[in-house]
Amino acid sequence: MEFKVHHSGRAHYYTPEEIDVVVKAMNDAEPLTQSKYRNQFEQKFSEFLGVKHSFAVHTATDALELTAQLLQFDEGDEIIIPSFTFTASAYPFVKQGAKIVWADTDPKTHVITAETIKACITSNTKAILVVHIAGYVANMPEIMDLAKKHHLIVVEDNAQGIGTEINGQKSGSFGDFGIFSFHSHKNISTLGEGGMLVVKDDDIAKIIPMLRHNGHCAFDFEQEHYWEPAMGNVDIPELNGKPIMPNNYCLGEVECALGVKLLDRVESLNTEKRTRAIRFIDALADFEDIEFHRVNSTRHNYHLLLAYFPTGKRNEFFKRIVYQKQIQCIAPYYPLNRYDFYKKVGMGKANCPNTDLFWDNMISFPFHHWMSEPDFDYMLAATREVLDDLR
Amino acid sequence: MEFKVHHSGRAHYYTPEEIDVVVKAMNDAEPLTQSKYRNQFEQKFSEFLGVKHSFAVHTATDALELTAQLLQFDEGDEIIIPSFTFTASAYPFVKQGAKIVWADTDPKTHVITAETIKACITSNTKAILVVHIAGYVANMPEIMDLAKKHHLIVVEDNAQGIGTEINGQKSGSFGDFGIFSFHSHKNISTLGEGGMLVVKDDDIAKIIPMLRHNGHCAFDFEQEHYWEPAMGNVDIPELNGKPIMPNNYCLGEVECALGVKLLDRVESLNTEKRTRAIRFIDALADFEDIEFHRVNSTRHNYHLLLAYFPTGKRNEFFKRIVYQKQIQCIAPYYPLNRYDFYKKVGMGKANCPNTDLFWDNMISFPFHHWMSEPDFDYMLAATREVLDDLR
Repeated sequence: MEFKVHHSGRAHYYTPEEIDVVVKAMNDAEPLTQSKYRNQFEQKFSEFLGVKHSFAVHTATDALELTAQLLQFDEGDEIIIPSFTFTASAYPFVKQGAKIVWADTDPKTHVITAETIKACITSNTKAILVVHIAGYVANMPEIMDLAKKHHLIVVEDNAQGIGTEINGQKSGSFGDFGIFSFHSHKNISTLGEGGMLVVKDDDIAKIIPMLRHNGHCAFDFEQEHYWEPAMGNVDIPELNGKPIMPNNYCLGEVECALGVKLLDRVESLNTEKRTRAIRFIDALADFEDIEFHRVNSTRHNYHLLLAYFPTGKRNEFFKRIVYQKQIQCIAPYYPLNRYDFYKKVGMGKANCPNTDLFWDNMISFPFHHWMSEPDFDYMLAATREVLDDLR
Repeated sequence: MEFKVHHSGRAHYYTPEEIDVVVKAMNDAEPLTQSKYRNQFEQKFSEFLGVKHSFAVHTATDALELTAQLLQFDEGDEIIIPSFTFTASAYPFVKQGAKIVWADTDPKTHVITAETIKACITSNTKAILVVHIAGYVANMPEIMDLAKKHHLIVVEDNAQGIGTEINGQKSGSFGDFGIFSFHSHKNISTLGEGGMLVVKDDDIAKIIPMLRHNGHCAFDFEQEHYWEPAMGNVDIPELNGKPIMPNNYCLGEVECALGVKLLDRVESLNTEKRTRAIRFIDALADFEDIEFHRVNSTRHNYHLLLAYFPTGKRNEFFKRIVYQKQIQCIAPYYPLNRYDFYKKVGMGKANCPNTDLFWDNMISFPFHHWMSEPDFDYMLAATREVLDDLR
């Protein structure tokens, strides 16, 4: 069907300066992958986040696949993951043999908390994956304390929350692993695909270049001539005495050059989205049938604008906003345990009543950064009208 | 060290029209991944090759990882692979549990042949991976006949041979699987990374979109409203009754748009490289110490310009051409069985005397498409001088 306001899969457009950066890199990058722009992007990203080790990869899924490999799960090991997230947060861990225990979310913030995590910890728990869903940072200081107490590894899936912070510390810099996405949907995108893996441990940082790039490494001896016995070695890195298989997860130079430039725009993009979200939320504050998670601070970047219908009117609202007003609201994700994928791998059961209640009464409004003011105004007025009708 | 002519990791530059295509896609792609440009690229690629099913992926390695999954190896199954190739031709099959049997190459053409393959076939052989190394097409008609007789699956690793042909049929269209690379080194490159997987089987073609994109699929029932029960399903596809795990191997829209445009330039890029290669080869025909594989037809695209030193003077030539003439010749790859990776997985032994002899006496000249005429002339004159000295 035709929409007056559609739910765009593209978050933002590029400025002329950003396009210039791409054209320049197309003209001067040599080679076109794994070179100076990758190094610049990683360096600047580490500075942006206040961390030591950042690795550009082709997707956030790649970063999660690498993390899942590096966690080296043994039979029976468990990882705690919210059921309310995108499937790529979880399936790499299934592929590496982990058992997923689904954590419930907080009914107000929709992220997992130290409390909901605690309820999932068993003697088999190895790790926790925290998702800053919709761009709101979970309470990382509390979660890190809990993890420390139980000797658990923390993965921060910050695919949606770039640039947000708690107590002045950037999201994605708390955990042992931090995951970032520059996919088309995200607040900044490196030509549609792109990701970053941030790690704390120096030994892990040492082997990621090999794991990312086909196992390439130098020989363990000094070569007299660079071509003898060959240009370089290919090997299988080890962690804790166990081998880890290499992959090819390289992000091209042009994307990396663009990433360097886009980092300068994270703060303004986030601020513009948050300002608009607050305007929308406040303009609907008089309706009891709809609720938002309102956070007017850098703790939220409003990657997504999610609404909850506490009085059970979600389905009726959905039909009217879509069919009468031609606004393409969506219901993003699905509690992961409900997908056939997770049922088939024995992870179809979850004890997540808050997530289930929220998800079944939730809606996601179109909220791309480039939505025009007239479209935004129309969406707001149409929403008011439908809510008025539903009263 | 500083080189007068270096071995570039970038094969070609972009025309103003190609840059325009990128800028246009940056401005009009929505979303920035998995949309119209991907469809155009796949459609045009299928027409270019004369095949039914082409799937754009982020790297040729991704295409090989997918192929390795789709081959569904059982314990003990073997795949025949030349030891003279890039490691990504082989390691995805190791990851999927296959045993690699290294095939020897023909001493003149440096690709594997029906004869060298035949020597490797056992009752456990499941598949053959043919590599059109340096851009020269192996004798696919003969290899396909052999494979048919022994009921073997054929994977054509055509990462280097795009646009070449035998009897008017394009390389990469013979096998059950065809692999293409648009990496920075290759004759055409989609911003440094990119690949294509071509498959013959319709059932396999059906599940590749899911395997490439996180297991996303439609529900197996008609949805009354697009958001109920969720926007879509996530599942595990099956082949021959066995599940195959999904991945995220998506190539962005901007790269795909560029790929569409670059396909128009394959023929001229190949012709220009071949013409130059023949010029170089013929200008050195009077030296007995150096040999080339001379093929002045569309069967060779001279992705690489490899030379062989039949009289044992390779090492001396290498030192002089590098240190006296400042030309960055290299020795690409390494017979794979010699790398620590393959030794560690029990594949360190090979019976490939032709490959070993060739590799130990071989050199690769700088041969990027954009090498200037003065640089090319200098390289040719310097090579003549060194060969004169070595006489």
